[in-house]
Amino acid sequence: MKNWAQGLRARCAALCLALALLPAHGTTEDGYDVWLRYRPLPAAAQARVWAQARSLVHAEPASPTLQAAVAELKRGVAGLTGHEPKVARQPTAGALMLVTPATAPAGVALPWGELGAEGYALRSLTLQGRAVTLIAACTDRGLLYGSFAWLRAAQTGADLAALNQQSTPKVALRLLNHWDNLDRTVERGYAGASIWDWWKLPDLVDARYTDYARANASLGVNGTVLNNVNAKAESLTAPFLAKAAAVANVLRPYGIKVWLSARFSAPKDLGGLPTADPLDPAVRAWWKAKADEIYRAIPDFGGFLVKANSEGQPGPQDYGRTHADGANLLAEALRPHGGQVMWRAFVYAPDTGDRAMQGYAEFQPLDGRFAPNVIVQVKNGAVDFQPREPFHPLFGAMPKTPLALELQITKEYLGFSTHLVYLGPLFEEVLRADTRRQPQGATVAQQVTAIAGVANIGTDRSWCGSQFDCANWYAFGRLAWDADLSAEAVAREWVQQTFTTAPGAVRTLTALMATSREAVVDYMTPLGLHHLMGTGHHHGPAPWVNDLERADWNPTYFHRAGRDGIGFDRTPTGSNAVAQYAPEWAARLSRPESTPEDWLLWFHHLPWDHRMASGRTLWAELIARYDRGEARVAEMRAQWAAVRADIDPARHAEVAAYLAVQAAEARWWRDACVAYFQSVSGLPLPAGTRPPERTLQAYKALRFNFAPGRGG
Amino acid sequence: MKNWAQGLRARCAALCLALALLPAHGTTEDGYDVWLRYRPLPAAAQARVWAQARSLVHAEPASPTLQAAVAELKRGVAGLTGHEPKVARQPTAGALMLVTPATAPAGVALPWGELGAEGYALRSLTLQGRAVTLIAACTDRGLLYGSFAWLRAAQTGADLAALNQQSTPKVALRLLNHWDNLDRTVERGYAGASIWDWWKLPDLVDARYTDYARANASLGVNGTVLNNVNAKAESLTAPFLAKAAAVANVLRPYGIKVWLSARFSAPKDLGGLPTADPLDPAVRAWWKAKADEIYRAIPDFGGFLVKANSEGQPGPQDYGRTHADGANLLAEALRPHGGQVMWRAFVYAPDTGDRAMQGYAEFQPLDGRFAPNVIVQVKNGAVDFQPREPFHPLFGAMPKTPLALELQITKEYLGFSTHLVYLGPLFEEVLRADTRRQPQGATVAQQVTAIAGVANIGTDRSWCGSQFDCANWYAFGRLAWDADLSAEAVAREWVQQTFTTAPGAVRTLTALMATSREAVVDYMTPLGLHHLMGTGHHHGPAPWVNDLERADWNPTYFHRAGRDGIGFDRTPTGSNAVAQYAPEWAARLSRPESTPEDWLLWFHHLPWDHRMASGRTLWAELIARYDRGEARVAEMRAQWAAVRADIDPARHAEVAAYLAVQAAEARWWRDACVAYFQSVSGLPLPAGTRPPERTLQAYKALRFNFAPGRGG
Repeated sequence: MKNWAQGLRARCAALCLALALLPAHGTTEDGYDVWLRYRPLPAAAQARVWAQARSLVHAEPASPTLQAAVAELKRGVAGLTGHEPKVARQPTAGALMLVTPATAPAGVALPWGELGAEGYALRSLTLQGRAVTLIAACTDRGLLYGSFAWLRAAQTGADLAALNQQSTPKVALRLLNHWDNLDRTVERGYAGASIWDWWKLPDLVDARYTDYARANASLGVNGTVLNNVNAKAESLTAPFLAKAAAVANVLRPYGIKVWLSARFSAPKDLGGLPTADPLDPAVRAWWKAKADEIYRAIPDFGGFLVKANSEGQPGPQDYGRTHADGANLLAEALRPHGGQVMWRAFVYAPDTGDRAMQGYAEFQPLDGRFAPNVIVQVKNGAVDFQPREPFHPLFGAMPKTPLALELQITKEYLGFSTHLVYLGPLFEEVLRADTRRQPQGATVAQQVTAIAGVANIGTDRSWCGSQFDCANWYAFGRLAWDADLSAEAVAREWVQQTFTTAPGAVRTLTALMATSREAVVDYMTPLGLHHLMGTGHHHGPAPWVNDLERADWNPTYFHRAGRDGIGFDRTPTGSNAVAQYAPEWAARLSRPESTPEDWLLWFHHLPWDHRMASGRTLWAELIARYDRGEARVAEMRAQWAAVRADIDPARHAEVAAYLAVQAAEARWWRDACVAYFQSVSGLPLPAGTRPPERTLQAYKALRFNFAPGRGG
Repeated sequence: MKNWAQGLRARCAALCLALALLPAHGTTEDGYDVWLRYRPLPAAAQARVWAQARSLVHAEPASPTLQAAVAELKRGVAGLTGHEPKVARQPTAGALMLVTPATAPAGVALPWGELGAEGYALRSLTLQGRAVTLIAACTDRGLLYGSFAWLRAAQTGADLAALNQQSTPKVALRLLNHWDNLDRTVERGYAGASIWDWWKLPDLVDARYTDYARANASLGVNGTVLNNVNAKAESLTAPFLAKAAAVANVLRPYGIKVWLSARFSAPKDLGGLPTADPLDPAVRAWWKAKADEIYRAIPDFGGFLVKANSEGQPGPQDYGRTHADGANLLAEALRPHGGQVMWRAFVYAPDTGDRAMQGYAEFQPLDGRFAPNVIVQVKNGAVDFQPREPFHPLFGAMPKTPLALELQITKEYLGFSTHLVYLGPLFEEVLRADTRRQPQGATVAQQVTAIAGVANIGTDRSWCGSQFDCANWYAFGRLAWDADLSAEAVAREWVQQTFTTAPGAVRTLTALMATSREAVVDYMTPLGLHHLMGTGHHHGPAPWVNDLERADWNPTYFHRAGRDGIGFDRTPTGSNAVAQYAPEWAARLSRPESTPEDWLLWFHHLPWDHRMASGRTLWAELIARYDRGEARVAEMRAQWAAVRADIDPARHAEVAAYLAVQAAEARWWRDACVAYFQSVSGLPLPAGTRPPERTLQAYKALRFNFAPGRGG
């Protein structure tokens, strides 16, 4: 008997080993599972998790949303522990109970009133002598979010036997914005083609859409705009509405509403009307009928996102009307259905002075003139998704208008998907920025009712073009749910779910991620510099470009470097953009000495010998920052090398290859910028400075045809 | 002890079950593994395979190619049986021995002379009393092909204990042609973006490239042209050569050479020369230097594929020179390095009579004028990758010139990746077509030294846009290796490796695949009709289009239907295209009664009341064929439904959804064509004919913006 048992044990081990060795689906660890990997935990942790999730108790019949929650818990626990919990009618010891006010055990006090429609609570307690865990929420959507939260807790080492968590989103609307075109190209996309296979929809519904929904629901994202803000009118035709409806059907159980970008001229383009004038009765009737048609196809349609009178898009100003007239037109059509309009404030026209001032100038005076279901969507900064920008002056400046914060998850100006830049600190910086507006002291996060992120998702196996770019999708969602989370904590839990739970490696990788955003600021645009990137594609340094058609497309427009100094004077002696901020900020930003050094050249034109906090001249400090950026990437490479033993070989090698590119390109950025700014300043390099590797002319001669992200 | 053993057994079963339940990488059976799935065989088959593959014996040190072979055998056997074979120094019982003439066991007679550089033999034999299997070849590449052949045998139920196979490719060059652009769009691509991530290459080398190499090597594909024949000159610049070299490094161990499409005007575009005249010494020097540069980067570079003076591409005729002058220019540059030129014969200029005649007219007179390392690449038919075309008249007509057969794997004119059309029968039909040329009776397959297939590969998880489209990649490779294989046998082995080994299901699916090509001919272009597809995108029926700029872009040009009848008169009373064929064929094709009915309207313009073999009039037969096509798709759906129990749910549901689309579109094709041809013939529908669902005007009004495949 013993021999038989040993034989069985050996065969079992061999089989398990063989299964473990088997490369599932042809490759190991390709990143497709993002942070929902659910790979087996270390043995002790497996036992701890299994002890709390031996069975699942939930209401019957389960709604599709509750079914999704239960399926995710089964999948997660099975993956983490090797055991799949069974569904039970009655709680046994170690049960996970998904409860609402209608199904919660009697006598258990839960803060239902605080949870609202989306919040959840996780509670360990003893019920009739049995230790159980409650996942509690007022709605099935809350239970879904709570289930993901429990799985996150299980993977990040929380004490599952003593849970007492509660979370409710601070911001009602948390949306991805896809800049995906109907031909499946993606504007500013660096991860392959669009995941939306418009051609095959609605008949073919890719399994990937479900995994997209799971990943977003795990973060609490509750809306997605499927198509590019540079919109084609065809997206509103019946065939495309049927396609969008098929996507909506997949996303609905996961609590995600579908939105569409609308082209303002659609009544002309599609309806054959002679005008799209928002005050024209036929135009109003057209939009009303279109909204009715949309809601027949998608009963829970979120609404429209609109880019109007910006970068060539049509809009109400074509008819002498205002943005409010345009937005209210669409709002009127959507309102009977409960839909909303997100109207973008990213506008700029040629030769109107300081481009950074235009959004505020056009929108702030309209405060109070928007319909109640209009939200004005404002980018985090006033220029365009730079590595660092001061917060946009519109935040806090339109008290009568709901605002949305638009962040860019895809790294248009931050090295595409090739540079490892964790955006959590960037998001945190703007969310926590104190506008000093009424009510005094309100942060940007407290001023907005919606947060939108321009997605970085594509058909690449790892979704976002690189493993670490998935952390930016993750951080966007987590911080949109709760801006009080720290970017560092979010990085830590992402690492634990995505790569490893080994404490040393988690520490190292969290540190690596935390410094990566300062690195890119330093090697691209330190000290408040901005928009020095290559024309059109925004890849690589091009601070010398000064010959583009529009003044405000040229890097020289933004840095204004010359013999006399460098920087954009936005004080009262210059464009006076500072006056768009609250008085306290306006005063502070008017003087270099009270301006944060990280924003210095955004607001001030200063001589090269301006003395910095470090004691260095501005010239020496600029070069020191570029050097620091390059050095930081070297440090990131060393940190990544140090965790090699804790990461699977495939992903370790892949990330190492990306970091090698980033190191080379950080050096390129540093060298090209140093060479250029020296040619302008005419100053010698500070003693000990490494001269640029190549001549300025060589850097200027580089061309990047076929750079990605210009689709459409 | 017994309890303990039972407990262990139970736990083992639970664990194995849990592992089996676990959706690896987020989804089950997404098709990524194509025909290299290696999922566990039924228990009895597992034992039979494992008995013959307990260990692997091979030469040490192993070349990268031999390492690839060994790795594939380990992976395959582990997947099929749950046991990974160990590498052994000496053969034990059940060993798989990879041997060359240098390492073969003494005393074993093997047909080395017949195997050549690529062939292999599989032999079961007894060696010193031990039953072993030899995989024998003269080269490591032959061993790689033999290893894949052994794995194929293992999955298709061959008696592995009594193997006696031998195979040598009949055609030396077996290439994929990617019509992939440098911006990652794919012309006529229906499977997402290009797998070649040019932007990230050469630094980032996607793991997918290795899987691409494995799949191709399993078929014997030994070359790949990475970029579109509508080529950008930039593909020949140093940065892109470095990228191509990185791909070549991945493909090299798998016996696959990299080729590039070359733009004929590159000396002007890149070199700054005033001309690209092939007789200009500076142009010759430019190409020579460029070839030298390429071979420094890619020492085993295959050569150039060129589309010249066709559809707007530059070419030698721009300078009054011939295709031979142009091809020889490039051949001269490549020749010192052993490279070759594939020069495409797909040419057509506006308004030169019968478009089908132009390739022959331009190329046949040049026979004997091409350099020895030029291969003229000829599409299977004279028009353009239609559902059915007569074989191209150039086959057999250029005895002094090596020819390549160009097939299209991507289904530009056959329903994109949405219609299930197994192309094996189409490939077989042209390969076996008897040209009646010198030497008398030679088939197309016997006339060619190369076979190229326009790839259908993209970033979609299942590679080719649909599960069944992978069968077309598979069939291309298998038939290119050995044109004597039957398309049906190839379908059978593909099903066994891809879906199931259950005999009934294999029979049903093989039958389904076998009829699928006749179905698409019937519902799109029966009886020799051709090029009735929608303008530009080639999606859907548009036989009415007659207003395009060039006559030979219009469907009406090809079908010539009117009150008097239908069809293109290519006999001596018409364009006399038949004269381009061998005299025997020319005579036969000149008379309707001796023309195969499947080609009838390709060669003849006939009255609607022409009597067909069926006894029906041509008008009634045309409608009967359209009806048969629609009915065949219904039958395919029933066949697919019948195998449901034998197919995993995810792929079964996906294919069923595709078939539903195909059924709807087959009906659309049938109805639109019947409606149109009736409007032209003015004849009543035969009794019992189902009238079209919609009006002709409704079909004409359909528009397909954003149809895929028009990238570039």
